[in-house]
Amino acid sequence: MKPAKISILAPGLIGGSVALAAAQAFPTTSLFIWSRKKESLAPVQKALPQAQTGTDLAMAAGSDLVLLGAPASALGQLVHSLLPHLNAKTLVTDVASVKMPVEREVAPILQGRARWIGSHPMAGSEDSGFSAARADLFRGAAIILTPTSSTPSTTTREAEVFWQTLGGRVLQMPAEEHDRSVARISHLPHAVAAALVRAAGKSDLALVGPGYRDTTRIAAGPSALWAEILLGNREEVLAGLQELRGGLQKLETALEKADATALAKFLDEAAQIRRNLPAS
Amino acid sequence: MKPAKISILAPGLIGGSVALAAAQAFPTTSLFIWSRKKESLAPVQKALPQAQTGTDLAMAAGSDLVLLGAPASALGQLVHSLLPHLNAKTLVTDVASVKMPVEREVAPILQGRARWIGSHPMAGSEDSGFSAARADLFRGAAIILTPTSSTPSTTTREAEVFWQTLGGRVLQMPAEEHDRSVARISHLPHAVAAALVRAAGKSDLALVGPGYRDTTRIAAGPSALWAEILLGNREEVLAGLQELRGGLQKLETALEKADATALAKFLDEAAQIRRNLPAS
Repeated sequence: MKPAKISILAPGLIGGSVALAAAQAFPTTSLFIWSRKKESLAPVQKALPQAQTGTDLAMAAGSDLVLLGAPASALGQLVHSLLPHLNAKTLVTDVASVKMPVEREVAPILQGRARWIGSHPMAGSEDSGFSAARADLFRGAAIILTPTSSTPSTTTREAEVFWQTLGGRVLQMPAEEHDRSVARISHLPHAVAAALVRAAGKSDLALVGPGYRDTTRIAAGPSALWAEILLGNREEVLAGLQELRGGLQKLETALEKADATALAKFLDEAAQIRRNLPAS
Repeated sequence: MKPAKISILAPGLIGGSVALAAAQAFPTTSLFIWSRKKESLAPVQKALPQAQTGTDLAMAAGSDLVLLGAPASALGQLVHSLLPHLNAKTLVTDVASVKMPVEREVAPILQGRARWIGSHPMAGSEDSGFSAARADLFRGAAIILTPTSSTPSTTTREAEVFWQTLGGRVLQMPAEEHDRSVARISHLPHAVAAALVRAAGKSDLALVGPGYRDTTRIAAGPSALWAEILLGNREEVLAGLQELRGGLQKLETALEKADATALAKFLDEAAQIRRNLPAS
């Protein structure tokens, strides 16, 4: 895959990192970076002097690939405005953290007008915006593609090669399965990190060590975006919260009974799983 | 403070790091490192050829400072065996993660036989043992001293200077207050990290990103030690679990009602607190 033109709509943490990584991985490809706000484009233009930037979606015309970096709530409107500038060969992908709502909303709009596949790069940080973007953000990161039963395999393959060229480790699964999994490995940890921060008092914070820092790091992330993500996946997040609650109940019972064996078993089972996690 | 001799009993992650750091910070001081098991001492002797090592507590005789690196459950027995080799001027300190039980058990044994103060370095990692020890482990780390109402200020001051010389940021508070705080910023996060790991299925783990990795890192820690810590501080940990449960309930209600405002507020309050955490 050697795209002649890539357009990136909304250069936030993910979109901006795609722009920086694509500029390195596809040095002869034309890059167009769009933002709704002109002032967001100045730092992008500075970091990528060879790229085109602008607030007019018409400049995306003729793209082989359009990456939608906007949050899920903005995608419907954005894709509608983008329609006149797409052709049937354009590959469109988004990077939203919850895939079923995007599949329901975006796929019908693009049906017969462009090719679409959902992407979710498992990369990022508690920071947001282009200032947090990094060209190596996707190196070694899991990138989940969510083809539907009607997605042509050539579309999936093209998206796979694109992300692999940016350094990603590509996996495929249906959107529903994706949403179930990320509820447990991304959305639930975020929710719990926030609850942990709230459970500690201000005076406790002078004492914190590396354990607390790491456990709660993601709680500093952009709240509006995370509220949208949790709501977009609320059934699975609620199911994950139920499972977590069951675990915490087990722990509480072991503590109340001062049952050292049960407690060690609970912690040990978790330690075994966590130690077997492949290095990133 | 320029101790002529420092003894470190049990060179695990913390004791071993004290040994490595003290060798650098006090280059003219004699170091003695004790372990119950001879085979644990070979790597220590290799890393610190200038130190004395041995399995005989009599070799600790004449120490200005004795650091007890053993876990809380072993301290009573260890201090009893150590008694004949102490003098009234020796400063003894431990590094256990829960201070009230140590204060109750160790202080009476040492009463009139040596000077004692509790220490808790808020440093460490999910690894354990001397192989994980680092000379810079305490650099910038919060070190909590827990003097009692009868601890002479000279004792507190000496311990403070010792830890500061190893790079620590020393704080003081009663053991009870310490235990309440660390329940919320260390013990509860550990328990929750374990519960989070258990809430995800094995198939989910191929997808994990940096958020999950950081949130659950500490769950890989030594389970037996952590079971001991959680049990040693069980009343405060149970109180922390109650508070956490209240927060999770709030979150669940907001998700069930699809209340975006309440959800964003919940996350935003946590994000504000977390962002204001001083850098380590």
